[in-house]
Amino acid sequence: MAANSFGHLFQIHTFGESHGVALGVLVDGCPAGVPFDSDFLQKEMDRRRPGFQSGVSARKESDQAEVLSGVYEGKTLGTPIAIIVRNTDQRSQDYNEIKAEPRRGHADKEWKQKFVHVDHRGGGRSSGRETLSRVAGGAVARMLIRALNPKCEITSQILKIGDHDYDPKTAETLLLQAQSEGESWGGLLQIQIKNPPHSLGQPVFHKLKSDFAAAMLSIGATSALEVGAGIEASISKGTDFHTDKSSRSVYGGLAGGLSTGEDITLQIHFKPTSTILDVAKKGRHDPCIVLRAAPVCEAMAALVLADHLLWRRLDNL
Amino acid sequence: MAANSFGHLFQIHTFGESHGVALGVLVDGCPAGVPFDSDFLQKEMDRRRPGFQSGVSARKESDQAEVLSGVYEGKTLGTPIAIIVRNTDQRSQDYNEIKAEPRRGHADKEWKQKFVHVDHRGGGRSSGRETLSRVAGGAVARMLIRALNPKCEITSQILKIGDHDYDPKTAETLLLQAQSEGESWGGLLQIQIKNPPHSLGQPVFHKLKSDFAAAMLSIGATSALEVGAGIEASISKGTDFHTDKSSRSVYGGLAGGLSTGEDITLQIHFKPTSTILDVAKKGRHDPCIVLRAAPVCEAMAALVLADHLLWRRLDNL
Amino acid sequence: MAANSFGHLFQIHTFGESHGVALGVLVDGCPAGVPFDSDFLQKEMDRRRPGFQSGVSARKESDQAEVLSGVYEGKTLGTPIAIIVRNTDQRSQDYNEIKAEPRRGHADKEWKQKFVHVDHRGGGRSSGRETLSRVAGGAVARMLIRALNPKCEITSQILKIGDHDYDPKTAETLLLQAQSEGESWGGLLQIQIKNPPHSLGQPVFHKLKSDFAAAMLSIGATSALEVGAGIEASISKGTDFHTDKSSRSVYGGLAGGLSTGEDITLQIHFKPTSTILDVAKKGRHDPCIVLRAAPVCEAMAALVLADHLLWRRLDNL
Amino acid sequence: MAANSFGHLFQIHTFGESHGVALGVLVDGCPAGVPFDSDFLQKEMDRRRPGFQSGVSARKESDQAEVLSGVYEGKTLGTPIAIIVRNTDQRSQDYNEIKAEPRRGHADKEWKQKFVHVDHRGGGRSSGRETLSRVAGGAVARMLIRALNPKCEITSQILKIGDHDYDPKTAETLLLQAQSEGESWGGLLQIQIKNPPHSLGQPVFHKLKSDFAAAMLSIGATSALEVGAGIEASISKGTDFHTDKSSRSVYGGLAGGLSTGEDITLQIHFKPTSTILDVAKKGRHDPCIVLRAAPVCEAMAALVLADHLLWRRLDNL
Repeated sequence: MAANSFGHLFQIHTFGESHGVALGVLVDGCPAGVPFDSDFLQKEMDRRRPGFQSGVSARKESDQAEVLSGVYEGKTLGTPIAIIVRNTDQRSQDYNEIKAEPRRGHADKEWKQKFVHVDHRGGGRSSGRETLSRVAGGAVARMLIRALNPKCEITSQILKIGDHDYDPKTAETLLLQAQSEGESWGGLLQIQIKNPPHSLGQPVFHKLKSDFAAAMLSIGATSALEVGAGIEASISKGTDFHTDKSSRSVYGGLAGGLSTGEDITLQIHFKPTSTILDVAKKGRHDPCIVLRAAPVCEAMAALVLADHLLWRRLDNL
Repeated sequence: MAANSFGHLFQIHTFGESHGVALGVLVDGCPAGVPFDSDFLQKEMDRRRPGFQSGVSARKESDQAEVLSGVYEGKTLGTPIAIIVRNTDQRSQDYNEIKAEPRRGHADKEWKQKFVHVDHRGGGRSSGRETLSRVAGGAVARMLIRALNPKCEITSQILKIGDHDYDPKTAETLLLQAQSEGESWGGLLQIQIKNPPHSLGQPVFHKLKSDFAAAMLSIGATSALEVGAGIEASISKGTDFHTDKSSRSVYGGLAGGLSTGEDITLQIHFKPTSTILDVAKKGRHDPCIVLRAAPVCEAMAALVLADHLLWRRLDNL
Repeated sequence: MAANSFGHLFQIHTFGESHGVALGVLVDGCPAGVPFDSDFLQKEMDRRRPGFQSGVSARKESDQAEVLSGVYEGKTLGTPIAIIVRNTDQRSQDYNEIKAEPRRGHADKEWKQKFVHVDHRGGGRSSGRETLSRVAGGAVARMLIRALNPKCEITSQILKIGDHDYDPKTAETLLLQAQSEGESWGGLLQIQIKNPPHSLGQPVFHKLKSDFAAAMLSIGATSALEVGAGIEASISKGTDFHTDKSSRSVYGGLAGGLSTGEDITLQIHFKPTSTILDVAKKGRHDPCIVLRAAPVCEAMAALVLADHLLWRRLDNL
Repeated sequence: MAANSFGHLFQIHTFGESHGVALGVLVDGCPAGVPFDSDFLQKEMDRRRPGFQSGVSARKESDQAEVLSGVYEGKTLGTPIAIIVRNTDQRSQDYNEIKAEPRRGHADKEWKQKFVHVDHRGGGRSSGRETLSRVAGGAVARMLIRALNPKCEITSQILKIGDHDYDPKTAETLLLQAQSEGESWGGLLQIQIKNPPHSLGQPVFHKLKSDFAAAMLSIGATSALEVGAGIEASISKGTDFHTDKSSRSVYGGLAGGLSTGEDITLQIHFKPTSTILDVAKKGRHDPCIVLRAAPVCEAMAALVLADHLLWRRLDNL
């Protein structure tokens, strides 16, 4: 039940195991008439690909998105948009060892305990490859946002790799070294939504921050989420915090769970990848998930935003 | 649509404005035959009440829970359980000033912009009083958990008031002083779920951590959530993090989004209350939300747990 | 889970046992700013009451609707609207016999088998009294419809009592006789929606006719539903049916599951009431459910319509 | 939103236009460990195919089902099962005339009015080809039912073609004649569920009959539904109806919306097909939908049953 669905009005349903036939997404609730940008979709898929970032991973995946439905003559039809990506580089044989012995730090053991019958190859559906469906769905969400609010922009910035402040050059050195040494790093990613419409979000259980939290913490390897001033907020005096001249920014563009129209800021913390412990991935492990996580977090932010853009239409008479 | 509903199989629907006739909760999906403990329900309501904690707030609310349906001869019927609390101490007249001028740090302005027609008194449904419905629903969730998993326990610990480590004595001094000075503090609360069943949580979008995140960040004044080692995790080296002798604890009782059976740990950060800026609450403001938030966060954790206890029944043939 | 919820965007959640403390409805998803007509609400409750129709039933219920939330200064707030009706005339003692022996034609036995622990008094939640919640919810739906589409009207006509064509006078004779003889009658009710907006309904699983069918067949004692020409349609030749000069009317105002803008016609068939077999209701049974069913069916039609009026807002860019 | 989803715990999400790249279904909520019978799936697809029934339609579709996910080593994984069928015989060019002029009796006009941007070819998603997704989803539902309740059987019987009682020989004559004369017929189909488990169904809004009604009336060309004795019930005297020696059968295996364990009977009425008016289908029209509708109605019945088999697990402590 709905374990693989996200969103309320603009919904995605995802599917696919990392070593099955294909993965994909079904987008339901996208209004008719949205210009569909196939190139943008493929670019987003490519951004998520390991190895796309220089020097990061040797595994090459060709993630060709195929649109099966819901689009006609360059526009959405208001019907479900199905997008699939076939698996090609599977190396299933690498995973025979796992069948006998679950990987430490992965969910192999828990998954087996839960479902009894599992696809042990590459984590099945608990694999990072699952995020491909999110990115495809998020790309469609961005097309809708662009059509409705062209000035609204979703961006991401890597703030930290482990405890090092991020800059591209030192990051590359750090990661190459990590890869050769069998080390891994967590990190910190920031999402910014610029020029969002105001009044998005719903009272009580679907405050924007609640839906963003659900979105981000549904991504594997995430360990914490900060909204606006986040942890800083909890250690400030109220008189300082609320009377800050730039006070709106400490709220992260949200008040009472609703968007104020100011930029929205989220910070997402990631654990170091556990693939360092993975017998199946000797020498091919991903030393830091944060780089690849950027398009995934952006996609999830876009999905929340698209959902609430539509929800907003129901607020008033 | 569903803006006031939480949960999938064990669901609550909440309602009520802080200065309306009544607030309440409708619990749907609770199985038949659960022993219903009315005393426990009322005790939970009392724990949430301002002024219950010594020296915290002068406002006295008598939150008598009345059960309207779903319970017969001391047990649940498998039908919806409606619980209401009538409002008594309303002091609506205090809020006339707000009508003209929205309160800074509150959602008055955003709410007005969104819904146009609003109940300006005491924040309406964006008031902290809304959490009363959550606590009532959470109490029923705990009855179900107790019946199914008697050893499973949900506890909370205040870790910090602002940047001060919590201990009851200094906290009381700090808060009394804050109240007299018109100051407020945020803080840090920890939730621990002891002896949880393993294999709770669902793949992808309903990982336990995702549902906990949605639950906690739906509470007003929350600004961050950490799962397991949280922010510490993001700045650790993988070889240290994953090979920690006590490593399971760094994962916070979760792997791949599923419960491992070990204790689950969540940390929730709160902003300093904004009532210091509130013209309507001169001298009656709550200097720190964290004390009253404890039963609310426990309730939300219980709701997530009850939901996934039922969901687990659907995993296998 | 959701067993007591109806609707998608305009939703109701109902609760209450026939001999519990109260019954009621929670309306979620009603936009802010809808003029709330309390008199109309109460009038609808009265229309549903047994004994309101002349000579029909001796049981007197005073169904006073109390609005607990969601309405302020005569308009909806966009927050959940809770409405309750307290039970007064319970005569629970009449039902002691049922505890030992389930009533034939009622669901007592099935309910007991399903939930094990049940409220045996008066059918609990399988009682016709449950429809009170629907009528209250439907009244709110009608306020929304009236505000958005003042020309749209939902009416009902009794077409048959048993196999007798309906007219008020002979019907009264028939029913008084039935009551004195311990007889009961089914019947046929027609719902007409005049001047509905076009393009309501959603493809595939939420065609208007599908949602109407779910709505009507969720009412106890219903045994069949016809849409448009209904059963006549199935025995017609296509060349006659589709080329009928008045052909739109044979479609009942629907095409491809969408409203065409022409009047919508539904016919709902009811079984004879089973209370004739009811040891607890000697001399007080309701000889024909169809009279009381009219406001209930209208309410369900209104709920479907309100839902789709909102849904329509999501169709296009 | 959810316009293309059916079911609550055992859910299907469908997609695809009749002349797009592919159609398909995503089954979510099927437990892990269900033996997956690919041959049965393909046989069900073939049963639905036009032309499969002797002499009925010249259009040849090769509906090869491809399973993309959710199945491994012959069993379900508890993850979403994606099944697609690529379109091959599209003849899109036949539909150019429709672009200018919507087909009478079809939903072309309404669809255009609703979504503005539409795929005019072959009805897009309002085409009968959409039912292919239902049959695929229903096949998986039947695998689950078979695994849980091997004795439970879903069968269908054609009772009438137009106003003629059905028998295979005269039906073939009738339909061949209709095809040559540009005539079409509606008809009556009966679904029987033999040896169903008792206590399926949920109170109030998800009575089995309500969910069956939603299921059947979501199919194109349906015009009425009867449950148990159906229309007969509405014209009977209560003393006859309820004291019928074989009375359980008049209830159609349902009481209070719950299954009694006795056979469940549904009758579904269909309008004559409107393709007789279809400029694009000269000589290729389907003279009677009822034959092809049988596997579709069975599939929908199976989906409802599978859903409630799982839901039943949540009833008790």
